[in-house]
Amino acid sequence: MAASCTPPLRTAVLGCGAIASLAHLPSLSSNPRVVLRWLVDADPERVRRLAETYGVGRVSTRLEEALDDPQVDAVLVCLPNHLHAEVSIRALEAGKHVFCEKPAATRHEDVLRMQAASLEAGRRLCIGFHNRYDDDVSTVRERIRSGTLGRILHVHCAFREHRSIPGLGGPFTTSAISGGGVLLDWGVHFLDIAFHCTGIGSIRSASGVVSGGIGRDIGRYAYLDMWAGPPVVDGRFDVEDFAAGLVRTDGPPVSFIGAWAQNVADREMHIDFLGDRAGIRLFYGGGYTLFEAEGGILTDTRIRTRKADPRRRMMDAFVEACLAGSGHRCDIGDTLAVSLAVDRLYQSAQQGKEIDLC
Amino acid sequence: MAASCTPPLRTAVLGCGAIASLAHLPSLSSNPRVVLRWLVDADPERVRRLAETYGVGRVSTRLEEALDDPQVDAVLVCLPNHLHAEVSIRALEAGKHVFCEKPAATRHEDVLRMQAASLEAGRRLCIGFHNRYDDDVSTVRERIRSGTLGRILHVHCAFREHRSIPGLGGPFTTSAISGGGVLLDWGVHFLDIAFHCTGIGSIRSASGVVSGGIGRDIGRYAYLDMWAGPPVVDGRFDVEDFAAGLVRTDGPPVSFIGAWAQNVADREMHIDFLGDRAGIRLFYGGGYTLFEAEGGILTDTRIRTRKADPRRRMMDAFVEACLAGSGHRCDIGDTLAVSLAVDRLYQSAQQGKEIDLC
Amino acid sequence: MAASCTPPLRTAVLGCGAIASLAHLPSLSSNPRVVLRWLVDADPERVRRLAETYGVGRVSTRLEEALDDPQVDAVLVCLPNHLHAEVSIRALEAGKHVFCEKPAATRHEDVLRMQAASLEAGRRLCIGFHNRYDDDVSTVRERIRSGTLGRILHVHCAFREHRSIPGLGGPFTTSAISGGGVLLDWGVHFLDIAFHCTGIGSIRSASGVVSGGIGRDIGRYAYLDMWAGPPVVDGRFDVEDFAAGLVRTDGPPVSFIGAWAQNVADREMHIDFLGDRAGIRLFYGGGYTLFEAEGGILTDTRIRTRKADPRRRMMDAFVEACLAGSGHRCDIGDTLAVSLAVDRLYQSAQQGKEIDLC
Amino acid sequence: MAASCTPPLRTAVLGCGAIASLAHLPSLSSNPRVVLRWLVDADPERVRRLAETYGVGRVSTRLEEALDDPQVDAVLVCLPNHLHAEVSIRALEAGKHVFCEKPAATRHEDVLRMQAASLEAGRRLCIGFHNRYDDDVSTVRERIRSGTLGRILHVHCAFREHRSIPGLGGPFTTSAISGGGVLLDWGVHFLDIAFHCTGIGSIRSASGVVSGGIGRDIGRYAYLDMWAGPPVVDGRFDVEDFAAGLVRTDGPPVSFIGAWAQNVADREMHIDFLGDRAGIRLFYGGGYTLFEAEGGILTDTRIRTRKADPRRRMMDAFVEACLAGSGHRCDIGDTLAVSLAVDRLYQSAQQGKEIDLC
Repeated sequence: MAASCTPPLRTAVLGCGAIASLAHLPSLSSNPRVVLRWLVDADPERVRRLAETYGVGRVSTRLEEALDDPQVDAVLVCLPNHLHAEVSIRALEAGKHVFCEKPAATRHEDVLRMQAASLEAGRRLCIGFHNRYDDDVSTVRERIRSGTLGRILHVHCAFREHRSIPGLGGPFTTSAISGGGVLLDWGVHFLDIAFHCTGIGSIRSASGVVSGGIGRDIGRYAYLDMWAGPPVVDGRFDVEDFAAGLVRTDGPPVSFIGAWAQNVADREMHIDFLGDRAGIRLFYGGGYTLFEAEGGILTDTRIRTRKADPRRRMMDAFVEACLAGSGHRCDIGDTLAVSLAVDRLYQSAQQGKEIDLC
Repeated sequence: MAASCTPPLRTAVLGCGAIASLAHLPSLSSNPRVVLRWLVDADPERVRRLAETYGVGRVSTRLEEALDDPQVDAVLVCLPNHLHAEVSIRALEAGKHVFCEKPAATRHEDVLRMQAASLEAGRRLCIGFHNRYDDDVSTVRERIRSGTLGRILHVHCAFREHRSIPGLGGPFTTSAISGGGVLLDWGVHFLDIAFHCTGIGSIRSASGVVSGGIGRDIGRYAYLDMWAGPPVVDGRFDVEDFAAGLVRTDGPPVSFIGAWAQNVADREMHIDFLGDRAGIRLFYGGGYTLFEAEGGILTDTRIRTRKADPRRRMMDAFVEACLAGSGHRCDIGDTLAVSLAVDRLYQSAQQGKEIDLC
Repeated sequence: MAASCTPPLRTAVLGCGAIASLAHLPSLSSNPRVVLRWLVDADPERVRRLAETYGVGRVSTRLEEALDDPQVDAVLVCLPNHLHAEVSIRALEAGKHVFCEKPAATRHEDVLRMQAASLEAGRRLCIGFHNRYDDDVSTVRERIRSGTLGRILHVHCAFREHRSIPGLGGPFTTSAISGGGVLLDWGVHFLDIAFHCTGIGSIRSASGVVSGGIGRDIGRYAYLDMWAGPPVVDGRFDVEDFAAGLVRTDGPPVSFIGAWAQNVADREMHIDFLGDRAGIRLFYGGGYTLFEAEGGILTDTRIRTRKADPRRRMMDAFVEACLAGSGHRCDIGDTLAVSLAVDRLYQSAQQGKEIDLC
Repeated sequence: MAASCTPPLRTAVLGCGAIASLAHLPSLSSNPRVVLRWLVDADPERVRRLAETYGVGRVSTRLEEALDDPQVDAVLVCLPNHLHAEVSIRALEAGKHVFCEKPAATRHEDVLRMQAASLEAGRRLCIGFHNRYDDDVSTVRERIRSGTLGRILHVHCAFREHRSIPGLGGPFTTSAISGGGVLLDWGVHFLDIAFHCTGIGSIRSASGVVSGGIGRDIGRYAYLDMWAGPPVVDGRFDVEDFAAGLVRTDGPPVSFIGAWAQNVADREMHIDFLGDRAGIRLFYGGGYTLFEAEGGILTDTRIRTRKADPRRRMMDAFVEACLAGSGHRCDIGDTLAVSLAVDRLYQSAQQGKEIDLC
């Protein structure tokens, strides 16, 4: 669909926070078909240090130069969520291929605008749903497709942690920057896995509830450790730390319950695929269990392997998608159902009723 | 509200299956303020044997004699679900107090007719929601009411078993007799506890899905043991063995996921009360854990006690309600919200959309 | 080895407590090759009621008549532990085949005397290690023998319950009657499974510790329910409720930790067979999990089936052993290693040092 | 007992591997009463980089210079286990205070020589049992001392991982360097906690078994990740990856079972303190649960807090012990019982019998 280009792929990384510095920069720098041309980040010290580590010649604290550089073939958008849509669209309009971290945008209409820009420009736009390149996810998807589970009756997603609000008071919990809390940050991955594995392509209704009762009193929040931390006591917390809901689809219905923080200590991070012949519980990031019941024997088989890093495989595939025009599992067009579901779940929560999409 | 009568309370037990013979007959026979006057059951051998054990003078295989006996003050309706409404109404019209096993009826309009008959006759009508007399449930309710948990943000019910379809192919799984599967049989108890403990009094919307994929192929169903069994291979299975949903209420939203059988082997039988200061996981029939987070310390306290039998306490309270006009936690008027929720959840599942009750 | 006899096998059941009335009487009464000739029990009411239920012609509260009856081919010794040896020996001397409940006796020298009496009389003597007829145990044994697990490096038995002292203050906890506590009551089964599955035939050393700290203060003991209960507040408690130890054998070493009661609430009832290629956790009475690690994949497979009742199969095999001289897995000669291990573990605990048997 | 010196404490760190670079260097460099004078490591590149990071003026790949420098007050021995004794003794003889990582040495007689050298030189010698500065360990110790648990009947240590052999084929698994496997590496910590919390001061007997069956075939070892890795396929593995045993003491008996790797996937990393009134399960590195049973109520209370880094607190206390002569919980004299226990457990395993120390 999109134009390919000549190797090496000349890239600019826009936003050099955790996801870029820990995952994408190592991947790109070790890919012989890539040249890292620009690193851009608001923090001049950080961007300089990373440029040194990875031998990148051009750094900036502003986006324009990299976006305007005709020698850039592709950009990675690793900026805060509220900037995803505008920066991606601008890069596409400048003729760049774009990899944008998830969520694509904070509102579904922006996602559609991003897709339109991609189509218009004839450039790739992939979204960072790295689980689609996770070996366990792929195996589960294959088992479902091949009929091992029979008909999938229901999918249930649990993404519940006791105390795991990220950077309380900072960008993650500031709605104007992040666009949402646990549903947008974690839920989108779980729903993506649910949809991807079962082939759900569209949604019929979305009914959701959200709340933000645990993180609200920042100074009082008790926790053991904090990712993306430490807490900013005078910061903002105006996103949800809890969400639950039910989505009807063109495939099986999907229910979910999730929490960055909740007052129940049992961690549940899994997706249950409930088939009429067998079932699978996929542990997020850590293997899966297949539940079978044949010939009067109940057999539960838990399988774990040392896996390839899914983010690296996703990034390598993006590079090939740009260079060779090959397929990519995270093309924006294939992520619309999840984006729409999340958007409508927020709408449902706000209106206090199910959103009907039929 | 209802007329009281002179001790002893003369009772007739209509239907002598498991619940009557294992729970209510022992309770009534050991209560000095009760006389067991009639036992009625379709199985003449069973009713004769039980009458001998408990020294009951009158037995029958038909309901009429007991209902027409002016010496009967109260009847227990322990018949299959599809008979609950008609028999209860007839007993009320004959001037009897009535204890009816749960669910009150298989359709909400029948429940309302039962309530109307009770009011008209000036006789008590209590439904067998015995968990309201369970010590743990009462303690949890009290902790919620006293503010230990802060504001309840959400309630989540899980009633999921791997292989626990009762009497597959028999009355439990025959819709014309039972009126429904796991939602009506188990879900009603879990929702009742959720509503009772948080004081939910009305519902605003109900969105549910159900399926019956595991029990359908009766001969193939693999299991370890079966309550209300054994399976009837040429019997019927036209109820749901799985249900999930979301109910909006005048209090916190309530989500649930339940299964008599599912292809995931992890048993989950609990109700999570998620407050903004603390939370409780109530294990169905077995204690609870309180999750607190004060002063930077995360404390989970699991509490279990040797409890009084809740069914016996419920029955003793029913006897006193009839004799002395005292209050009862299961008066039909206090169970309407649950009955309505279940009814609308089935309706939602059938129509494929949320039912709005605002 | 032992003389066979003509069907039907004419039997006397000596002691009609729980194990006889719930397990062995139903088995024997439904076996067409058995005639139940005598029931003997100290409780005249109980024995009369059981005789009526099972249509047994002769009852007694004393052992002599049944033992002296020449029409009795085989006796079941289901009496308290302290009577096992004397009654079994007397029955063997009277020419009867004997099935004796576990433990064979309370001291190993008595077990040897029992074996000698069996050999002398040319009559079968089987001990109630019913797990040897459990399907899961047999499967595990077969997997070990066939090499699935590689070399067994170690076996670890955990039989730890939070609150499960039986009949506190009664025969179970009175040393003069039971001969011991959790080690003799539960430990003997776990060690038996360990030895049986791995083919351990002799022991080299036994080092053990025991304590009785939880049940000692009978009136204060907190519990949820009690099997073989209720507590006898002015009864005795002079056995161990906790035991741990290490046994060196001609096969893999066996460690164990067990408790009828302990102040840790996590239930552990399993036997770990740790091989160098794979391992098995056998859940007592409930399936097993096979842990494999081949080709970089870690696979845990939990298997559960609806099993035949092992006690019934053991009893049926005993009947055939008497009638046809066929083999039996619980011949006393095959149980000596376990009996010796338990005896020496008690001795070790008392002396505060390991007992060397090399 | 030992001479104090004038601040700042001038230190040399001998060995700059993981424990030094991740824990002790950050601690020392942020302590205003410390001057880091020397870093020594066999890897010249590593030591140079660390010296730069922490602003240390003197680096070397040989020990002599730092040990001979009269301006050094204290040294940290963070070298492979087989060097602990000789280097510590040499440093003490040179008049330095010494902090030596655990285990003190690979044989107990070397530990005694280390202690003698400390006494002779009048210099402190502390061993890196950092758990003694862990808040949870201290709380548990206090609860035991104050009588909350009643009499401690038994202590059971479980340090069992499914796949956690460190650096398979490297120094950890080479006996000539490490001196031992899981018992010396992990077991020593668990026994130390057991002894420290209960006040065990001497041992009476030690009976142990060890095996090395999982790591032996290095190329075949299946795992998910490896700490101190990656595997060295042509390296050595001649230590134990499994150990179990029983230690009799002047206090409660202590049993243990531990594995760097085993073919059972359930992780168990805890120490059970079984008292006659209450019990505690201490999770290694992660909180504890208190089990109580009063007034018929069974209460399990799990407590977790955000803790101070125990290694930093241990190091700060060592600095003060050197400067001010204050007490330290890890003085070598207080660690002898654990060292002796481990030594005799290895001896017992080798000889196939219990070692008696009475």
